[in-house]
Amino acid sequence: MGGRIKMELLKERIQKDGKIKEGNVLKVDSFLNHQMDTGLFREIGKEFKRRFDGEKITKILTIEASGIGIACIAGEEFQVPVVFAKKTQTKNIAGEVYTSRVESYTHGKVYDILVSKEFIGKEDRVLLIDDFLANGKALEGLIEIVEKAGAHLAGAGIVIEKGFQPGGERIRARGIHLESLAIIESMDEKTGEIRFRENVG
Amino acid sequence: MGGRIKMELLKERIQKDGKIKEGNVLKVDSFLNHQMDTGLFREIGKEFKRRFDGEKITKILTIEASGIGIACIAGEEFQVPVVFAKKTQTKNIAGEVYTSRVESYTHGKVYDILVSKEFIGKEDRVLLIDDFLANGKALEGLIEIVEKAGAHLAGAGIVIEKGFQPGGERIRARGIHLESLAIIESMDEKTGEIRFRENVG
Repeated sequence: MGGRIKMELLKERIQKDGKIKEGNVLKVDSFLNHQMDTGLFREIGKEFKRRFDGEKITKILTIEASGIGIACIAGEEFQVPVVFAKKTQTKNIAGEVYTSRVESYTHGKVYDILVSKEFIGKEDRVLLIDDFLANGKALEGLIEIVEKAGAHLAGAGIVIEKGFQPGGERIRARGIHLESLAIIESMDEKTGEIRFRENVG
Repeated sequence: MGGRIKMELLKERIQKDGKIKEGNVLKVDSFLNHQMDTGLFREIGKEFKRRFDGEKITKILTIEASGIGIACIAGEEFQVPVVFAKKTQTKNIAGEVYTSRVESYTHGKVYDILVSKEFIGKEDRVLLIDDFLANGKALEGLIEIVEKAGAHLAGAGIVIEKGFQPGGERIRARGIHLESLAIIESMDEKTGEIRFRENVG
């Protein structure tokens, strides 16, 4: 129960500091994905540890940029290395990479994500971590990379899921262990009201 | 002295796992900027805390993507919020932003970085954190944002500085308190030899 009580703090924070913008955008950039409250991230990391305890996680995989901070603090809780998928090819990355194509809702464009083959292998039990789940395209890209690596997908931990968009349902339908710490059932741009799904976790 | 001994571990890690690629590229993506060793990040965070103790830091500012993990763990050490500058304008960011133009050595192109005006103010004492300092363009972009915000620039903490490229010298010449945990004096692609500047910190 301790974890649930802590995650009520997350929901209160979303209620207090989240701003609803047109186009179903929830701005939580004062504490989650532009300015970051690392004390909250620590509680989030502990809660992911609680929910995926027993999964024998060997590696955390996230995607740049806003997943990285949460994943790093979770990485300390799990005591495993953290890898972030990169969004564009740079000089600094080896040629030998796993890739996946992702369609971004936020940016309205398609991009490739890549992970060096050195950092995920068949022996790994991978936990995916990200800040948001909406249409699920980024998470599906990460899943594809885990599959290409032949690693075991242990599950996915998300901070905020937009329950009224299809990503979460589609990923659960595949039998993937998905844990979202706050699932938004509905939000109203005019009134500012945010309703959460009950009894998560 | 404790900090210095710990930072010897960083240099040993660079020696052991760093790979020198053509064009003066040092690949440390097995522990710093693709796969991330959060145990090492914790030691780095503690060392930044030691070096900037007494500066009354109120905010850490970094730049996406590879600065974020280090900055978050340092943020816990300083117990201050962490902000990361974004590299492109997205739907999720408010219109009211500080911007700076950055020329990227790694990517060979020019991009804008931006920070929402909400998250840096005149009252802030800002510590800049990044993984690498080479030509210094990204760091100068962050400095410009701090100046535009009218905040106090308390200093800059860098994990690896390429001492043979001009960024560090230029920034120190401006009187900015710059601390680089490992300064590479030279590196040889053929032999794999990496030499560090002595007596840093």
